[in-house]
Amino acid sequence: MELTLTGEYAVRVLIYIATNSEKKSFHIKELSKECVVPDQYLRKIIPQLTKSGILTSQRGNGGGVSLSKTSDKISLLEVIESIEGEIFLNKCLISSEFCNRTSWCEVHCVWIEARDKMRDTLSSRSIKYLAEQSILNKHKLSA
Amino acid sequence: MELTLTGEYAVRVLIYIATNSEKKSFHIKELSKECVVPDQYLRKIIPQLTKSGILTSQRGNGGGVSLSKTSDKISLLEVIESIEGEIFLNKCLISSEFCNRTSWCEVHCVWIEARDKMRDTLSSRSIKYLAEQSILNKHKLSA
Repeated sequence: MELTLTGEYAVRVLIYIATNSEKKSFHIKELSKECVVPDQYLRKIIPQLTKSGILTSQRGNGGGVSLSKTSDKISLLEVIESIEGEIFLNKCLISSEFCNRTSWCEVHCVWIEARDKMRDTLSSRSIKYLAEQSILNKHKLSA
Repeated sequence: MELTLTGEYAVRVLIYIATNSEKKSFHIKELSKECVVPDQYLRKIIPQLTKSGILTSQRGNGGGVSLSKTSDKISLLEVIESIEGEIFLNKCLISSEFCNRTSWCEVHCVWIEARDKMRDTLSSRSIKYLAEQSILNKHKLSA
């Protein structure tokens, strides 16, 4: 059970964009270079983040991508799930017909509880918070 | 991010064994039939659960498998991790060198927090608890 590299890259790109909020838009080449994300990943990530309303994409010479909303409104959960699909869960881990045997559903309930706690944590952290922490950490390192 | 079918089957088998605690040992054929788990999965699951100290296996005609410890000492987390390996996590979701860039570690921290909350939930539920819930639910269904 691991996050894909695509999900990791998406978070990295959004933190970079949020950290450089003085810029209006970002070209794929810049994001690829600055975030150390291969071009082919960006071409997969950007349409997904655009589709889910996190990024806005402008075509043409003056184009690029930008955040569709302020970074405090984008949670880590939203980013991960827009790339990976709904986080984690089994169809129902105990039934041969995937949850049609209600007699076994107590395991399903524990599973849902565990997933919800994980989702709550990811939901409570915004890209803005992560960008701020990143800047703080960089200052500490350069101090 | 989904649990494999093997992990699901392992939980199902252990609940069955714990529910039928009056029996001393269980043959693969019985487990396969009663738990609706294909034979080839059981031949993969049983050595893993034996290796991790959850099951004890006796060979020969009178042989079979049994729990190595009481079912209240076996957590859902222990079972899942003995089959799947350590639950969930990225190498480090934000660094190109997998966590060598400490400047980015704030995302890694959120990730660890989310995983720990999930693990705590799975750790807090024993196979005994799940077996008891299963029996209660069956009684409710047949009432």
